[in-house]
Parts: sequence; structure tokens; C-alpha cells
Amino acid sequence: MEAALCNLKDPLIDHTEGQCFLDEAIKIIVEEVLCKGTDVKQKVCEWKEPNELALLLDLELRESGEQQERLLQRVRDVAKYSIKTSHPRFFNQQFAGVDYHSLAGRFLTEALNTNLFTYEVAPVFVLMEMEVLRSLRQLVGWTEGDGIFCPGGSTSNMYAMNLARYRLHPEVKSQGLWALPRLAIFTSPESHYSVKKGAAFLGFGTDNVILVKVDERGHMIPEDLDEKIELLKSQGVIPCFVSCTAGTTVRGAFDPLDRIADVCDKHKLWLHVDAAWGGSVLFSKQHRHLMKGVERANSVAWNPHKMLVAGLQCSALLLKDTTNLLKRCHSSSASYLFQQDKFYDVNLDVGDKSVQCSRKVDCLKLWLMWKAVGSSGLEERVDKAFILVRYLVAQMKKRDGFHLVCEPEFVNVCFWFIPPSLRGKEGNADYQNKLAKVAPTIKERMMKQGTLMVGYQPLGDMVNFFRVTVFSPLVSFKDMDFFLDEIERLGSDL
Amino acid sequence: MEAALCNLKDPLIDHTEGQCFLDEAIKIIVEEVLCKGTDVKQKVCEWKEPNELALLLDLELRESGEQQERLLQRVRDVAKYSIKTSHPRFFNQQFAGVDYHSLAGRFLTEALNTNLFTYEVAPVFVLMEMEVLRSLRQLVGWTEGDGIFCPGGSTSNMYAMNLARYRLHPEVKSQGLWALPRLAIFTSPESHYSVKKGAAFLGFGTDNVILVKVDERGHMIPEDLDEKIELLKSQGVIPCFVSCTAGTTVRGAFDPLDRIADVCDKHKLWLHVDAAWGGSVLFSKQHRHLMKGVERANSVAWNPHKMLVAGLQCSALLLKDTTNLLKRCHSSSASYLFQQDKFYDVNLDVGDKSVQCSRKVDCLKLWLMWKAVGSSGLEERVDKAFILVRYLVAQMKKRDGFHLVCEPEFVNVCFWFIPPSLRGKEGNADYQNKLAKVAPTIKERMMKQGTLMVGYQPLGDMVNFFRVTVFSPLVSFKDMDFFLDEIERLGSDL
Ligand SMILES: Cc1ncc(COP(=O)(O)O)c(C=O)c1O
Ligand SMILES: Cc1ncc(COP(=O)(O)O)c(C=O)c1O
Repeated sequence: MEAALCNLKDPLIDHTEGQCFLDEAIKIIVEEVLCKGTDVKQKVCEWKEPNELALLLDLELRESGEQQERLLQRVRDVAKYSIKTSHPRFFNQQFAGVDYHSLAGRFLTEALNTNLFTYEVAPVFVLMEMEVLRSLRQLVGWTEGDGIFCPGGSTSNMYAMNLARYRLHPEVKSQGLWALPRLAIFTSPESHYSVKKGAAFLGFGTDNVILVKVDERGHMIPEDLDEKIELLKSQGVIPCFVSCTAGTTVRGAFDPLDRIADVCDKHKLWLHVDAAWGGSVLFSKQHRHLMKGVERANSVAWNPHKMLVAGLQCSALLLKDTTNLLKRCHSSSASYLFQQDKFYDVNLDVGDKSVQCSRKVDCLKLWLMWKAVGSSGLEERVDKAFILVRYLVAQMKKRDGFHLVCEPEFVNVCFWFIPPSLRGKEGNADYQNKLAKVAPTIKERMMKQGTLMVGYQPLGDMVNFFRVTVFSPLVSFKDMDFFLDEIERLGSDL
Repeated sequence: MEAALCNLKDPLIDHTEGQCFLDEAIKIIVEEVLCKGTDVKQKVCEWKEPNELALLLDLELRESGEQQERLLQRVRDVAKYSIKTSHPRFFNQQFAGVDYHSLAGRFLTEALNTNLFTYEVAPVFVLMEMEVLRSLRQLVGWTEGDGIFCPGGSTSNMYAMNLARYRLHPEVKSQGLWALPRLAIFTSPESHYSVKKGAAFLGFGTDNVILVKVDERGHMIPEDLDEKIELLKSQGVIPCFVSCTAGTTVRGAFDPLDRIADVCDKHKLWLHVDAAWGGSVLFSKQHRHLMKGVERANSVAWNPHKMLVAGLQCSALLLKDTTNLLKRCHSSSASYLFQQDKFYDVNLDVGDKSVQCSRKVDCLKLWLMWKAVGSSGLEERVDKAFILVRYLVAQMKKRDGFHLVCEPEFVNVCFWFIPPSLRGKEGNADYQNKLAKVAPTIKERMMKQGTLMVGYQPLGDMVNFFRVTVFSPLVSFKDMDFFLDEIERLGSDL
């Protein structure tokens, strides 16, 4: 070692060399990811079998370092074999597209590399996060309240659950769940799986997540919620938390918030709205009615990293509470970080509201994008997504072979592609079995050819169907036409 | 709205314009953050009172968007008023410095904007994360095992707690903690506050976190652990989890892992090593003895975002387990994401090991940096940090007014600065009271002058002392000298 340490007087990193590497890497990123990666003449994915890809990437970490040229090739390879999630033919998830202002905010966040726990290390971001949360709350309809950015909607949902039980039984923080009666959580079977995951993680247990019935389009039925609450009460279980969904993951259904709020009021339950996916409709004067009643909730989870294209990760938990519940519930007052004898207002040390210690700055990218296009620009994107979806559905109805699972309420379109050989065979005994295999087959083909990416899943009794989500600001009518043509092409011989 | 939507045929984002903005923003980032932000002739922080800063930044989000020039000025302002955490005079936290390869990896991660849940959307990163985890496990001394990157060490610690209780009582996942006897967690009073936060969040309750005594340098005492376990058992409580710390947050103490492992073996308890801060010594042949016995642990939390300068967030939870415990404990088998009828090996869909759904790619930056400098380069950084710390301590001992809290074991140096007026007054009744005010006063001055950033805190009976952490690859001897000179200068009239 001593030989290697010969130059102890100097830093171990050379800025000129480093910045030169960064510069070259950025050129590759722009070329491969931002230019080719959004070009419809290029593939959305370069499929490789795992073994082959592992070989190509030479992932092993070794004793010695590598030359800059080699490293730049690695940057190129990583870009090449990664999925182009900004590509106009990427419809696979609830994120897609790219916004350059947001991306600039993300680069700046990375370069500044700070932590959202105290004002002293993050003065700009403490104030910025407060302002972004305030603006999001305003869209919910709240003039006061609280909130925090979390590493994803799943975590935001967990926070809400923890707050609900703490409000009911603050002794849970010190004594644990053993000191409490059994608590129950209510949600619909079409809610996001994070409600169950959170219930398990927080010690509630998944059996204590009670599934409320949905109607045929996937909305929670308030009357069934009321009955289930009564039933649980009669069994000595304490109802604690209702998680509605505003924009369900698969079908994009909006639970009827106003009517559910009535039930929650009646039983004095915490109403949480998981608007991770659908929250962005609040920007739209035309579509915000989908979330009518949201202002009656106690908490709202909203992921700008989904429909708003803010970039992963960006998820806000918004709270109506004005009693500092978030901090009381989560604080541990660590004296090495949250000293009370600081020379500034220590209420600005927001970190103790979190169950994290290090917390990434997730607000800058959203703030910069919002500054760039304004609320009206975000509204335009939301409105345009609905228009594109309507167009896509209208085109589907004109073609043979596309069969909607239900009329879309949001920007998810769920449909079966019925291949030629199955058309008119609905009555056959093996129809459902055969249909179930169509989406996986088409999916394999599109991935291997790299022309398109869209997801599929079963739901309840319904066999595999495609779910396409349309919201990327990079897509337009011709991408909708391409989508349909391509599904037809890939499935024409099935 | 309709007017704004006139151009529906085209995407809402113009790539040329966007890339031009990004290009200009990058220039500002390089100039302000990477050049000025690491230049010792420039300030480490540009202190503003919160009200003043809020005015300067004009944070409010409005209906209309802004011009590019204005937005670029905003990028500049955010950079200007943010803390320069890469600056050689930033010693305030457990992160500091910058590595350009890691930063390139972070920019690439942001541009690719994907999610570590399935092979289909993250083929490169699924394989890369596996390889990085394997290499980290190898340093721990495990040839097999499991693991996952989490959004921070606090979350990694929570995962370990959840796994320990699930291994003991798998029914907790469905039935919740009510179905279990009371469980206890053991850690030292100098462990990170995330153990208590995690215990509260997961429903254990902070009262069930039992604090094991430490010796005068802050190491957990195995005999006291053994006694406390026996005591709890005699009270009908089930010991479940021991969290040792390898590199405590304030003093940098390494708990004696081998002797604690003996106690855990005896009682068949899950041994977790919180090596969020100290784990990086495993790269060093010279210093890895500090973690002797770590291979006997069940789980290790290790944050490359701290000492290794990988950039926030980067935290790995490593597991010895080979029974798929992580997935069994956390899975919910969501059928829209983790379909079992995919055309590739669905074991590569690692997302169900997580309690998150969206999960940021945190491995690429570490992988690229590791490729660039090799294990030997990371070893050199660790070794150099120890050398700089020894130098700093030697210089402190030569000067009046610097009084060590204890001899450093790691790269934390804890010390009181005794200002001239207090020297030789140790016997006075108000000495401790006065000493307690010294660090906050000096801290205020350094922040307002922008010359240095270092943290302070009390610990147990000990009044406020400074904790300096030395590990940034950008610092060298002269920064150590500056550090001491500057503390003296700032405190000379006290
Ligand atoms: C309705 C809903 N809630 C919550 C989530 C989870 O959000 P995240 O992926 O950020 O954890 C999702 C994501 O798919 C979702 O669709
Ligand atoms: C010993 C120790 N463990 C855990 C953590 C928490 O890590 P994170 O800040 O990534 O949540 C820290 C951070 O300060 C730490 O010092």
C-alpha cells in the first residue's frame, strides 16, 4: 500500500481528468439515451438473454481499475442494453418519457449531493420542498397541512398507515402493537399491492387488510365498506384506516371519494387517498372531478414520478394535519443531527419527520419542471393524455380483434387482443385458456424485436389482457396508430 | 384549453430545445458545483437567513411557465445558495467529496430513468445489482447469500429487523404482531437512531429496544448483552434481534463482533451489523480487522454513499441467508408486475424482495466507480483517510485548546475546542456550561463566514463537542492544517 500512497499530499482525485471523463460520458448519454433512445427509428429495447447479457457487460469487479476509454465503452454498453423508457413506444409501466427541465434538475441534485434533513446542509431544498408540498396541497384543496417526499408511493402509503394508528393510539410508538387492540385496514382488491406490503412491514399483518368489494369497473363500493366496518367492530377489531385509490394501477379506476368520506366520517376513520397514479388529474380543470371529495381525506399519496414525468423517485405524502403529527409520530430527536441549540429556527430541520435519516432531494426536479411549464403546462399534458386515450379507444373500436376490458376512466386502456384464430370462438371451452396465452406470446415477440413495450396481467377472473398507459409528453396520434398496427402485426398468425 | 392543445399532432416536448437547455444547465453545474464548489478559495456555504433565502429564490409555483434564460438563472441560484458538500472544507456529515465516475453513473441512471423491479425494464441493472451485492458479500466473507439496495441505511436496518422476526415467526406477515409474544431488540446507546425509528415504524415499539451498556470508548459490552437477554427471557419477552454497530455515528466505535456473535450463537439470535458508516474498512487489508467476526452475522447494512463517496442514495443490505428469506418475507406476488408466465426466468424479477414498488437504481454509480479505480483504489482511499486522521490527531495534540473526547478508532475525530478564556478552568463550577456553548458559537461563525462546516453534538454526560469526519478523496494534509487553524481563529476570542 505505501507505494500507492506516495502522493499523500495531494487529493486522490484530479478534477480536470474527472471533468473530462464526465464530459465524454455526458456526450454518450445524450447520444444514446436522449437522441437514439427517443427515436422511433431505433429500438425501444435490445433484448438479450440474461447469460448473454452478463457476458457482454463483463460485470465483475476487480482489484485494479480500468482505463478511461474502456470505462466510456461501459457507459455506452449500459445505455445500449438498457430499456429506453423515454422512447415513444414504451408503454410498459406508469413512468415513461422525459422532461428536459426535470432532467436538468436531477443532474443538479446529483451534483449537489445533499441530504434533506437539516437546514444547515440543505437550505435551498428545505424551503423548496415546503413550497412544492404547499402547492400540491393547494391542488388537493388544503390551505394548511403538512407533508414529506418519500422514496416512492409504497413508502408514502406506509407513512399514512403509521400516522393513522399513531393518532388513534400514540402509545404504539413506545409500546408497540402488543399494547393495542387488533386494528384493521380497509382497501379494495384493485388497490396497489403496497397496502398489503405495508401492512405486513408495519406489523399489522395482511389478514388485517380487509378487502372491500368493487363494482364491475373496479370502484370501491361504499356500502360494502360500511358493512365490513360494522362487521369488524362486532368482532372486537378496531377499524383504523381506509385506503382509497385514485387511479388504480391496472384499470385506472377512481374510488368514489365523497361517498367513502361519508363512511369514514361516520366511523371516525382515517381516510387515505392513494393517488400515486391518478393524483395528477388535479392539475386539470376538466378532469379533476375524478377526485371529487379528496379534500375530505386525511392524507394523500401522489407520485409526480409517474404521470408528471418528473423522474424516479418523486413521491409526495400530503397531510391535512396541522398538529405536527408527522414529526411527533416519527421523531427520535437524535442529538448529533437535530441539536436544539442551533443558531437558526430548528423547525426547519425537517428530517425528524421522516423514518429515514439520509433522504434524497426529490423536489428540485419537480420544481424546475413546474417553473418551466407552469401549472398550465402540466394541465395541458394531463388533458392531452386523456385526448390520446380517447383516440386510441376510438381506433380500437374500429378494428377487429381489440376487445376492451372496460371503458377507460383514466389513461390506462385495458384490452384483449383476440387473434384471428380465436375470433368468433368465444363459446369454445378452451377459449379463455387460449386467450390467456396470447398476451405473453405477443409480449415475447415485441421484446425480442424491440419494437414496442406494453404490459399485461390477469385480474380476478379475467385472463391476461394488455394494459397500455398513455401520458408521456413525447407521444402523439401516430404513436397510437403504430401501437395498434404493431399489436396486430405481432399477433396476426396467432 | 383547446387553443393550447392546437398542436396535438406533435409531442409536447421539443428535443432540440430541451437538449439545448440541458447543455446550458450542465455548464452551470460544472462551473458552480464542480469547479467553484470544490475550490478552497470559494465558500463552502453562502449563508442566508431562511426568509431572505426564500425571497431570493422566488420559490412560488405559478400558472405560467418561464423563459429559458430565467430558468438557467434559477439553476445558478440553486447551486449558489446550496451547501457545497464536495468542498474540501465540508466535514459536517458522513458524506462529502465527489467522484466523477460515480457522478457519471448517476447522470446515466437519471437519464435512463428505470426501475429495479423486473428484468424486462431493467435487464442491465438487475444483473449489475446482483454482481455488486456479490462483491460486497465477498468482502464480508460470504460466498453465497442474498441482498438488496435500499433507500438508505435506516431502511436497510428496518429490513433486517423485519427479516429477523419473520424467520422466528413467519405468521407475523399475515397475522401481525398480535399473534406473537413480545419481542425485544438489543443495541447500544451509541447505535444509530434508525434502530429506534425502525422499531417504532415496524410496530415493535421503542420500549422494546433494550440498550446494552458500552465501555468508555463506546463499544457494546457483550457480557451486559448476555445479562440483558437473560433478564428479558425471565420476564417472558422473546429476544429477537441484536444490532451491533461497525463504526458508530458519533465516535466511530466498532462493537466487538466476534464476542457478540458468541452471545448471539448461545441464544440463537439474529445478529445484524449496522456497518452503514464503517463497512468500507472491509476494503482495507490494514483496517478490516476492525470488523473481525462480521462473517458470523446474519445481515450487514453498508452505505457506500457515506465513506466510499458513491453519492446519495446508496445503501446495501447484505444477507447470509440462502433460503430466499428476503423474498418470502416481503413478496406479495402482484400479478400486474410479477407475472409467472413470462418468457424469461422470473427469478430475475427481484422487485418482490423489496417493500418498495418503484425502486431507484443505486448500483450503477458504485459499479462504475469501482470499475474505474478497482478494489485497490477504494482500499487506498480508506487507508488514506486513516492516515489523515492520525495526522489531524497528532497536530491537535501539539496545539493548546484541542481536547480529544477519546482516541479515534475510525475516521471520526471527536474533540472539544477549549477557548483561551476556559483553559485551565476545568475546576470551575460553570466550566461545563460554558464549554457547551463554545461549539454552537463557533459553528454559527463558520457558517456565516462560509469557511468551514463541521458538526457538533453532546453525548451522554458529555457537553457539546465537535465531530469531524475525514474521508473525502479531495482532502489532504493542508486541509487538516486549515481545519485546526480555522477553529482556532473562530474561537480565539471566546
Ligand atoms: C395506485 C398505486 N399506488 C401506489 C403505487 C406505488 O408507488 P411506487 O411505485 O412509487 O412505490 C403504485 C405504483 O405502481 C400505484 O399504481
Ligand atoms: C451507524 C449508522 N447507521 C445507520 C445510518 C443511517 O443511514 P442512512 O442515513 O443512509 O439512513 C447512519 C447514518 O448516519 C449511521 O451512521
